[in-house]
Amino acid sequence: METDFLAWLLDRIPADPRLEVPPGDDAAVLRPPARRRTVVTVDMLTEGVDFRLGPDCPPRAVGHKALAVSLSDLAAMAARPEAAFVAVCLPRRGGEAIARDMLAGIEHLAEAHGCTLAGGDTNSWDGPLVVSVTALGSVPPGAAWRRDTARAGDLIVATGRFGGSLLGRHLDVKPRCGEALAIAAAFEVHAAIDVSDGLSLDLWRMMQASGTGAIVRLADVPIHDDATTMSGRPGDGRTPLDHALADGEDFELLLAMPPDAARGLVQATGRPPLDLPVTIIGEVTAEPRFLAEDARGDRRPLEPKGYVHGFDA
Amino acid sequence: METDFLAWLLDRIPADPRLEVPPGDDAAVLRPPARRRTVVTVDMLTEGVDFRLGPDCPPRAVGHKALAVSLSDLAAMAARPEAAFVAVCLPRRGGEAIARDMLAGIEHLAEAHGCTLAGGDTNSWDGPLVVSVTALGSVPPGAAWRRDTARAGDLIVATGRFGGSLLGRHLDVKPRCGEALAIAAAFEVHAAIDVSDGLSLDLWRMMQASGTGAIVRLADVPIHDDATTMSGRPGDGRTPLDHALADGEDFELLLAMPPDAARGLVQATGRPPLDLPVTIIGEVTAEPRFLAEDARGDRRPLEPKGYVHGFDA
Repeated sequence: METDFLAWLLDRIPADPRLEVPPGDDAAVLRPPARRRTVVTVDMLTEGVDFRLGPDCPPRAVGHKALAVSLSDLAAMAARPEAAFVAVCLPRRGGEAIARDMLAGIEHLAEAHGCTLAGGDTNSWDGPLVVSVTALGSVPPGAAWRRDTARAGDLIVATGRFGGSLLGRHLDVKPRCGEALAIAAAFEVHAAIDVSDGLSLDLWRMMQASGTGAIVRLADVPIHDDATTMSGRPGDGRTPLDHALADGEDFELLLAMPPDAARGLVQATGRPPLDLPVTIIGEVTAEPRFLAEDARGDRRPLEPKGYVHGFDA
Repeated sequence: METDFLAWLLDRIPADPRLEVPPGDDAAVLRPPARRRTVVTVDMLTEGVDFRLGPDCPPRAVGHKALAVSLSDLAAMAARPEAAFVAVCLPRRGGEAIARDMLAGIEHLAEAHGCTLAGGDTNSWDGPLVVSVTALGSVPPGAAWRRDTARAGDLIVATGRFGGSLLGRHLDVKPRCGEALAIAAAFEVHAAIDVSDGLSLDLWRMMQASGTGAIVRLADVPIHDDATTMSGRPGDGRTPLDHALADGEDFELLLAMPPDAARGLVQATGRPPLDLPVTIIGEVTAEPRFLAEDARGDRRPLEPKGYVHGFDA
């Protein structure tokens, strides 16, 4: 029952000094940090589209992913996570067990990122599991990374490796919040986006928003082992690079940075808090063409590929 | 398609000085108002539970309701609406037409309440319509109305009339934001809650949270004409008062106020911005019993009734 579950839930959420009115009221009341902006993002995940409950994907993994994709959006703005709100629609049958397990995944990730669980909404129906997470972060005025401010001459920098996320990383999402804050503190970044739908599609979106073009050096795209594994499967018919450019759900960051800053960042990586690969994969151009350059220096149009939600009029 | 729809959507959202980074980026960046707290609430609505799409309930009505129930939560905190975020999961077939019509309902209500549409998330699936609205408001420090701070001796005040909301008011929700702000500016309020699930259930929740009891004077409960209509239907078997106490989705406010403030408020109503009935329906007691008093002064336990989401372990 909703009432008992909520009592249990409210009892286990730790107090947080950022909250003037804690969870359990009609709304939460937050003390916004002084001299900072509030960054807000919302992501909805649905069973059958974003996850399939089963042995490989318990509710705990769904909870983790639901918060992680919102935290990844905060990372893409260079925002510090502050608070999260979770709205769920539970299947009536077994809903409470799902909710408790899902909450465990949310709590664990929230704690790791210093994010307080500040409220939510619990519903039930005779349908699949739906979860929507709203994440609030904070950032100094004018310091949020945007996607529409890349400049011609910037180098394009990618964190991590790409492709084949369906082999497990699409659930075990590692939002790059700490990395983003460390980069923002030390390097000039002109624009940023996180890769949710596909490396080529999300990079194209950043270029479109900025009114710029890009040249991607295909030989420099960091390919994840998972992409190679998927490419090697019978009938796959796609190269590891194809997977890296289009699979999506990598939840890595793409940054447009002045060349010196980009090179400085690459040199600074390999030790905490930037203990992950960081690679220059191309450059931003004034001409708004979206190009791929192969190892011989030949250029051809690069098609932005990735996941797009389809619905008709 | 998601991409075209989003371009259309972003194009029609008016600019707002509260936004440092407008909709369309990975997250929105808000300038929190100086010397105010941030109030946050989220509500998820699902087809088949909270609404049934059809001639009497077009998507526009769903959009209205989805935002209205969140604004009602802000009203219950005496918060001024600032920004809303809308996450939807659309049926693939006809999803875009649904989204456009729904947005019209959201925009109209948001504008009426000075709330900017600051972001969202658009998804699709082969399932029913799901919409989740996160509303942000603001309130001076320490000024938010809470549900856990009613005091023995307070009078219980209700805005509006109750019962029979299924005849249409459950869709045509009028959030009491302006009324709440006007009351907060002029009168001392110890505690508040909005009636979403049922007058008796939500009042009981406020008393439980406050560690107090209540006596409700049944003859004073303001009964809506819709409750009388529903009661008169063949086979209904419930009195208008039964409907008023348990139907829910009235989205009126229950306030616990010092007696002088409560009486002052009742006298001040009937003209803008408090152009709605305001009624004293009972009092808060130190003893945590929940009682109904009939017209002869006889008291019996009052059962908290209303809508509770059911799910099992």
